[in-house]
Amino acid sequence: MKDKIVVALGGNALGKSPLEQLELVKLTAKPIVDLIADGHEVVLAHGNGPQVGMINLAMSTAAGSEAGTPEMPFPECGAMSQGYIGYHLQNAIREELLNRDLQIPVATVITQVIVDKDDPAFKNPTKPIGAFYSKEEADELIKTKGFVMIEDAGRGYRRVVPSPLPVDVAEKETVMALVEKNHVVISVGGGGIPVIQEGNKLIGVPAVIDKDFASSKLAEILDADYLIILTAVEKVAVNFGKEDEKWLSELSIADCNKYIEEGHFAPGSMLPKVKAAMAFAESKPGRKSLITSLEKAAEGIAGKTGTVIVAN
Amino acid sequence: MKDKIVVALGGNALGKSPLEQLELVKLTAKPIVDLIADGHEVVLAHGNGPQVGMINLAMSTAAGSEAGTPEMPFPECGAMSQGYIGYHLQNAIREELLNRDLQIPVATVITQVIVDKDDPAFKNPTKPIGAFYSKEEADELIKTKGFVMIEDAGRGYRRVVPSPLPVDVAEKETVMALVEKNHVVISVGGGGIPVIQEGNKLIGVPAVIDKDFASSKLAEILDADYLIILTAVEKVAVNFGKEDEKWLSELSIADCNKYIEEGHFAPGSMLPKVKAAMAFAESKPGRKSLITSLEKAAEGIAGKTGTVIVAN
Repeated sequence: MKDKIVVALGGNALGKSPLEQLELVKLTAKPIVDLIADGHEVVLAHGNGPQVGMINLAMSTAAGSEAGTPEMPFPECGAMSQGYIGYHLQNAIREELLNRDLQIPVATVITQVIVDKDDPAFKNPTKPIGAFYSKEEADELIKTKGFVMIEDAGRGYRRVVPSPLPVDVAEKETVMALVEKNHVVISVGGGGIPVIQEGNKLIGVPAVIDKDFASSKLAEILDADYLIILTAVEKVAVNFGKEDEKWLSELSIADCNKYIEEGHFAPGSMLPKVKAAMAFAESKPGRKSLITSLEKAAEGIAGKTGTVIVAN
Repeated sequence: MKDKIVVALGGNALGKSPLEQLELVKLTAKPIVDLIADGHEVVLAHGNGPQVGMINLAMSTAAGSEAGTPEMPFPECGAMSQGYIGYHLQNAIREELLNRDLQIPVATVITQVIVDKDDPAFKNPTKPIGAFYSKEEADELIKTKGFVMIEDAGRGYRRVVPSPLPVDVAEKETVMALVEKNHVVISVGGGGIPVIQEGNKLIGVPAVIDKDFASSKLAEILDADYLIILTAVEKVAVNFGKEDEKWLSELSIADCNKYIEEGHFAPGSMLPKVKAAMAFAESKPGRKSLITSLEKAAEGIAGKTGTVIVAN
């Protein structure tokens, strides 16, 4: 039974430098190719937290140095991160496919995700990006660039940007066309380059779209059968880390809501994953979300492990 | 009569900063969309000289600063430049298409171009990239990183990398699939990310593939009808800038060889363009190359201006 699967990979799984990334993508490629070898159609989404942070920091450091390179807006840094990560990922998957005699093309599509300019997130930026600054530097950035800066856990001041919800994927027809042509597609890298629509124009905005929500939206648009959200653990747990910790194999939407209300899932960690999983499972009957680890992805799809989220 | 056209745009036409680029892509989009509105299938290739130079300089400046970001290899900088340029170009073309009520998807494909590891260019690096250094710094880079450094016109020392010929386009099936599905495709940005093939592996190498040669190779692979190489002038001239300057409307391969021998075309400027145009025109009967300015591209394809290069 061939399923169409969107897999959401965390940016932390890709390391902090190009050399680390080149090694880590090899580990990523194997379980992804396991799914493909099992006959599934795979679209791969990925985070870019550490990578876009590095690019943003490098660009702003160089802009403020005697190198005098131009300031680089945050959406452009995101576009760069898609090229940088996609290049490594597509090669590792290509190689793993060829090692198994699978002649399947792999492609990275530079992808913009449309957000609503009236999304309430724009009034409440919460996502820290880039370097740490002193109070004085932070005040200067607020004055000169209009940045919103917050104090981050005693380590200094950081810029925060909004995290709006994804509304649409600008390059959806491209991803669909390539999936139809039997390609493995890498898309919505870093949650996509965030853009707002004004008439016929797409305008980049400094924001971070949660990559699990972007993946969920892409899975909906592609009419996928499965959304797999990869995480550090094999299953979702309630009472995580406590004595009565309990690993869960299946969750209904009602279960999810109950556990969310009881505070079982950490914000910024398991909570957005569960919410993104719910959004896809609820979007159409028959759609399933799976939360599991990279290594267990193929076993999870085979029904052997992981936490499956299904609509009631 | 609908033609399949690969258009090669210069990196200098895209400016030196993101703000400049955002303006310049609008100017680029109009003549490109003129071609599409005339019914042609267009694949757009572009240079990245100023852009990858900026990224490379920023990454190496930040790596050597207290920001301490990792050193970024040159192929990865190229991948970043494809994301950065493709994002702006695809949006400008998308908008111009929609302004004319043309519902045609535009996509940027992260593209690697395969070169021969035994290409003689690897023994003779000639292409300067990145920052200028003092003699002492240059000697240090030679010692610690194995860079090849040359003195550049009295302005200091620069790293030089090889400029090998393109052999194949790794993502050709993706570009073909999208052209079949009626997309406008942006590919081989900056001449492509240069890679060598070792078994099933593609390995990035610090090199610059001439974007006109890469475009010519892509046009061959796609079985295009036309290769358009954009330049600053409307036509190719002999005795350029002299009293007996003569603008040319059509050139046979024999004409080209004669004029090349007579030294009419400047190396690093018109010469590689003429050579790339010849390579495509000679690759199969009926294929034509056109050298003209961006503004005159549609008129050139209509046979009204530009210099057409055809096989004898």
